[in-house]
Amino acid sequence: MKIARYVLKSRENGKPAWARVEGGFLYPMEFAGGETNGNPVRIEDARLLAPAIPTKIVCVGQNYLKHIQEMGHDKGPLPTEPGLFLKGPNTLADPESVIPYPAFTKEFHYEGELAIVIDKRMKPGYENPMDGILGYTAALDMTARDRQREDLQWIMAKSADLFCPLGPWIETDLDPGDVSVKTMVNGTIRQDGRTDDLLFPVERILSHILTFMTLEPGDVVLTGTPSGVGEVFPGDRIEVEIEGLGGLLAVKIGTRPD
Amino acid sequence: MKIARYVLKSRENGKPAWARVEGGFLYPMEFAGGETNGNPVRIEDARLLAPAIPTKIVCVGQNYLKHIQEMGHDKGPLPTEPGLFLKGPNTLADPESVIPYPAFTKEFHYEGELAIVIDKRMKPGYENPMDGILGYTAALDMTARDRQREDLQWIMAKSADLFCPLGPWIETDLDPGDVSVKTMVNGTIRQDGRTDDLLFPVERILSHILTFMTLEPGDVVLTGTPSGVGEVFPGDRIEVEIEGLGGLLAVKIGTRPD
Repeated sequence: MKIARYVLKSRENGKPAWARVEGGFLYPMEFAGGETNGNPVRIEDARLLAPAIPTKIVCVGQNYLKHIQEMGHDKGPLPTEPGLFLKGPNTLADPESVIPYPAFTKEFHYEGELAIVIDKRMKPGYENPMDGILGYTAALDMTARDRQREDLQWIMAKSADLFCPLGPWIETDLDPGDVSVKTMVNGTIRQDGRTDDLLFPVERILSHILTFMTLEPGDVVLTGTPSGVGEVFPGDRIEVEIEGLGGLLAVKIGTRPD
Repeated sequence: MKIARYVLKSRENGKPAWARVEGGFLYPMEFAGGETNGNPVRIEDARLLAPAIPTKIVCVGQNYLKHIQEMGHDKGPLPTEPGLFLKGPNTLADPESVIPYPAFTKEFHYEGELAIVIDKRMKPGYENPMDGILGYTAALDMTARDRQREDLQWIMAKSADLFCPLGPWIETDLDPGDVSVKTMVNGTIRQDGRTDDLLFPVERILSHILTFMTLEPGDVVLTGTPSGVGEVFPGDRIEVEIEGLGGLLAVKIGTRPD
């Protein structure tokens, strides 16, 4: 099942709603994954929103071997547990939105990723974290690469407003074990990885987080980015394609401030 | 005005409420800082809760010169802007609560801090951030110091569950320009700083955050810790005293797992 969050284009200031996506229609739901109710809406009459309301976004920093190599982090031993960082909820951005080129960077990078959306509260020690997953979607971990080298921690680099486009919807039936994760810039493939290359697969990531942190419904976990990260410029269109999701996450980069 | 959040001891599972604190009584409020309504409650009949519901907790890492020196970070140039990191909402802990000694550290440290609680949404470019402050309270930035040296970013070290005790209440009338920030462990003063020693005072911290990040009502900003950080052990009682707050933030460290 595909689960989206939307507002009607004719009522942009209306209350966002959840819906099941099927055959070009949105079937409104009481909550993400709940019973459908109300009249279906044509998908072209809706603007899709980031399909999660997280209390936190937990990200894995170095999870594809080739990306570790391209960042020059392969000189020492490989990580023995997932290396994590946080993005705040302020970073969420909607599918098909415009991400302004930030004033504080001269090196704005895309990182396409498979994202996990959490379904229920899991406290440390929770035993079967795969049962607590609502589904999967696509994410962009937008990164000010120059700031990443200067930040005390990667906050301006990774956690500025709109630095986490998410969507276009959640697929509940996706098996994350071996799917392709591709990023296109202006139609050219720039990242092309597969999740069977993950140093730490989904279950291992969640088990590690659950040694010290409670996950809440709606929380989002980004699983890391394949090799091929690079710069984007004003006017560029970025697309992330997760195999089995059935739709692209796409955003456009806005103008650079003077 | 002092603003607390509480549940009645006789109804621990009841809905938390906001209240004005005065003369040993809690006067229930519609929302933090709103009109009082309902009957006053004796403060001894209530259990105080962390007085904020943040979407994120933004922290300044190195803001008191003597703390920079004790951490050995004074060899290079001093920071030219506030160095930031994030703690998730999962880190909040209530006044007078027990913080279990974490299984994953052998070096559990206190860092007492002045905390800012945000009153209204401020987007990047907001011009008078001091107007957007609800008030001030005390916080502990609990830190697994050994993990801090190993983490890719300081997530396990700083953002484990209950790593941010906050309280006992918000004081809206506090002037943060020059107040003392003290931490006591089992009654002995271990940190004793003053906010006029901050490299980056409150307004400068908020101005910096607002170059790239929206702050939301309830968000919490930790302003950094004075020198004198150190270890705590099971059974220890930690207290943080902010001059002008009129009450201590106190927590106890729980048993260490086998």
